[in-house]
Amino acid sequence: MARRGKKPGKQRQGRGIRQLPWQDIVNIYPPMEILSSDQLESIHEASLTLLENIGMCVMHEGARVLLAGAGAEVNHATAMVRFDRHMLMEKVALAPSQVTLHARNPAKNFKLGGNHLSFASVGGPAYCTDMDRGRRRGSFAECCDYLRLVQSLDIIHHEGGGPFETIELPAETRHLDLYHAQVRLLDKNWQANALGRERSRDAIRMAGISMGMSTDELAQKPALLAIINTNSPLQLDRPMAEGLIEMSGAGQVVCITPFTLAGAMAPVTLAGALAQQNAEVLAGIALAQAVRPGSPVMYGAFTSNVDMRTGSPAFGTPEYSKAAQASGQLARRYGIPLRSSSVTSANVVDAQSTYESAMSLWAAITGGAHFIMHAAGWLEGGLTASFEKLIVDAEMLQMMSEYLKPIVVTDETLALDAIAEAGAGGHFFGVEHTLSRYQTAFYQPMLAYQQNFENWQEAGSVDTQRRANRIWKQLLKDYQQPPLDPAIDEELSAYVARRKRELQV
Amino acid sequence: MARRGKKPGKQRQGRGIRQLPWQDIVNIYPPMEILSSDQLESIHEASLTLLENIGMCVMHEGARVLLAGAGAEVNHATAMVRFDRHMLMEKVALAPSQVTLHARNPAKNFKLGGNHLSFASVGGPAYCTDMDRGRRRGSFAECCDYLRLVQSLDIIHHEGGGPFETIELPAETRHLDLYHAQVRLLDKNWQANALGRERSRDAIRMAGISMGMSTDELAQKPALLAIINTNSPLQLDRPMAEGLIEMSGAGQVVCITPFTLAGAMAPVTLAGALAQQNAEVLAGIALAQAVRPGSPVMYGAFTSNVDMRTGSPAFGTPEYSKAAQASGQLARRYGIPLRSSSVTSANVVDAQSTYESAMSLWAAITGGAHFIMHAAGWLEGGLTASFEKLIVDAEMLQMMSEYLKPIVVTDETLALDAIAEAGAGGHFFGVEHTLSRYQTAFYQPMLAYQQNFENWQEAGSVDTQRRANRIWKQLLKDYQQPPLDPAIDEELSAYVARRKRELQV
Repeated sequence: MARRGKKPGKQRQGRGIRQLPWQDIVNIYPPMEILSSDQLESIHEASLTLLENIGMCVMHEGARVLLAGAGAEVNHATAMVRFDRHMLMEKVALAPSQVTLHARNPAKNFKLGGNHLSFASVGGPAYCTDMDRGRRRGSFAECCDYLRLVQSLDIIHHEGGGPFETIELPAETRHLDLYHAQVRLLDKNWQANALGRERSRDAIRMAGISMGMSTDELAQKPALLAIINTNSPLQLDRPMAEGLIEMSGAGQVVCITPFTLAGAMAPVTLAGALAQQNAEVLAGIALAQAVRPGSPVMYGAFTSNVDMRTGSPAFGTPEYSKAAQASGQLARRYGIPLRSSSVTSANVVDAQSTYESAMSLWAAITGGAHFIMHAAGWLEGGLTASFEKLIVDAEMLQMMSEYLKPIVVTDETLALDAIAEAGAGGHFFGVEHTLSRYQTAFYQPMLAYQQNFENWQEAGSVDTQRRANRIWKQLLKDYQQPPLDPAIDEELSAYVARRKRELQV
Repeated sequence: MARRGKKPGKQRQGRGIRQLPWQDIVNIYPPMEILSSDQLESIHEASLTLLENIGMCVMHEGARVLLAGAGAEVNHATAMVRFDRHMLMEKVALAPSQVTLHARNPAKNFKLGGNHLSFASVGGPAYCTDMDRGRRRGSFAECCDYLRLVQSLDIIHHEGGGPFETIELPAETRHLDLYHAQVRLLDKNWQANALGRERSRDAIRMAGISMGMSTDELAQKPALLAIINTNSPLQLDRPMAEGLIEMSGAGQVVCITPFTLAGAMAPVTLAGALAQQNAEVLAGIALAQAVRPGSPVMYGAFTSNVDMRTGSPAFGTPEYSKAAQASGQLARRYGIPLRSSSVTSANVVDAQSTYESAMSLWAAITGGAHFIMHAAGWLEGGLTASFEKLIVDAEMLQMMSEYLKPIVVTDETLALDAIAEAGAGGHFFGVEHTLSRYQTAFYQPMLAYQQNFENWQEAGSVDTQRRANRIWKQLLKDYQQPPLDPAIDEELSAYVARRKRELQV
């Protein structure tokens, strides 16, 4: 234990990276409540008033027909849909408060809602970056490497829908290559791209094939999560409406996420931005319930603010943190699982990238979020997926998972006998109570360097970004592709080939 | 507002660094409670049992005499002092729950306790570091520069007792030079060095001179805070006991801070480490109340854990975060203001330094801490004060102060009219509700770069550490020494000269 004088061991080479095992993270701490109950009700009421008086522009006719059938007041000429508050709340009440997302490896199923917390890797950036090759349009091979890393990091429950766009592949069929890679390279849950009907249906079908399930069976055991972004303010466009209808129709999870950027697509005041976010989420949930009563949904909270000098989006701000926690109170009011995110505006994996990510991550988790999207890898306001940031974030997620393990208070852990044994002015290194526990007592970092400056300097003064670079390379070396039934792989290949022919016509 | 296309302005030069104004930070959010009330009581009871059965080794005879007079059971031969739990809690109940710390500029007084939150700069490291000159033993001139920066950063309420040791000055009288510089270069509150009687008395006398107050007047308007570290486990050494007796005797604030490093100086289990921390704090508070009933104290929480591979202290760990929040529950149980810290083991101002600091800062603040020691500048587990970290941390503190400003929910901020004006699918840039508010609506960062990658690259790809380097240099350029009555300065100089003669004999 007391090995202060001992020369530190070198970073392990080729023997795998130490990390926490896959886990069901449970958060039993009471959530932060930064709104009073009166304030919460005022925001709730304001959002209902918005949906009653202004309504939502729903650009997809089929969606409007479904909402009219559910009792909404529809004007097909203007595409505006207005919601009576009682009808709205009845629909919202149909949504389940908890759902299990299934993976092709059942050991990697996880729960959304209740007191469960799960983490997703970054999804959707245009670019990728790493220390060696810089910022660039990433190739499909590089995308596959990123997926391998997401598979390797056990703290990540869900692959976030493709780390970056691979523009070398044709836009019409790119999603097929991605889904195929997600199934092959991961045995954990992955995100569907719900932009339009084709991409959604392909995801549903390929998830079904990968798990040996019919579409009906898949509806009983949802395996897909899709983000449905409203086109704020108060608008749902055609491709997202199509995605919602396909996904909810198939009983898969839709996460309604307005991009309510205060000062641009939402009021400059947080209360107004939250009221608008809430209105858009509730309208989306009502549509999902009109499609298929009881279909699983998530409350997607993404309210942030613009940078006042440039009008650009700013992330990981104090306003973002407050909005994330207030959103938790709103989601709990409706009993809907909450999605939040870990975000930053920074352009490089430096101190800013971390303090902004920490600002959003801490706020989200202490605010009671159930699912953290972009929890690992996000950089540049979501424009870039970083290989090094993936590792830095994974460490932060591991630390949060340890923070959420409650302090155990028993006679053994209160350790009065051990304190008596050490004695006033003594130490605990040699005490049996210490010796029997020290190997597992504390979090062992994957990335942090906890030795002193002299050792650090002697080892080459390697900073955190560079250590992260070494770790992802080691993880790639150690990666083992999870086994997939050859018959399933063959069926997937045939499906992809057929669909490519159809879509490229 | 919508200036996305506009070329970004260059970093201001010579026109001052944008920062938040000096403020009384109020935290009205309900604190995180990670222990159940039963667990809290178990830790409390265990600490009382420790003090009843084992007691505390108090190495200073005068302190033992005071405690015997207060009803403790003293064995002068072994130096052990045992505390009856009723006597102990009666003494603890004498301590005030809130106190104002006075500065020589009364506009910079601040409150400890209640729902007030204050931030202190790093105190006590052996080394200093910056990007230009590297890690080194710092000179007195460099120490003065650091003090000038602490004065310049309005988010810092309290100078933490000298940023680093200046070993070029004689050890016996170094504190006099430091106190003199603290009075001259700062008009805000500063920390005393309470290691022994001489340093404590000099601080009290020089604080009195600087504020034109007698020692009796100073006792009514405390201006000094001193950290009293117990020598864990369960031991109070002579110099710290002397400091406590002098400071509490003069009605100044003592912060009893055990260094309960789980696995080394405290049990390897957090519950035990907290029970021991609590016992040591309560014993220290009882001594302060025996010295002077009603004298102001703080509950100093510093429990962390060792790194299990090396036995070195680890900081900003998940265990640290849990201990900080549990300590908040203990301090609130006794109605004592809580000191926590912002800490990291990192050796350089990189991602690790920030995620560990954020881990401790978020935990402390959401856990209800009143005073964050080492809140800006700490590096290397407290061995080094960093010029760049000072700036990075100041930004994080500013962000936390903004996060603590509650969301305003009124008809105006709910902005239903503005949402109607923008309309479905519209935007808020030109809406009057936005235009009249956008200049002050959101936090404007001091350090974070919120523009896109292309602008960042064009501006030289300057990372956060380098931007922090530029900011502290600009702050030093812009520094203006706060005026000090020449008669007071003369009296201080004479005092320092006389005391140097006395102490160097």
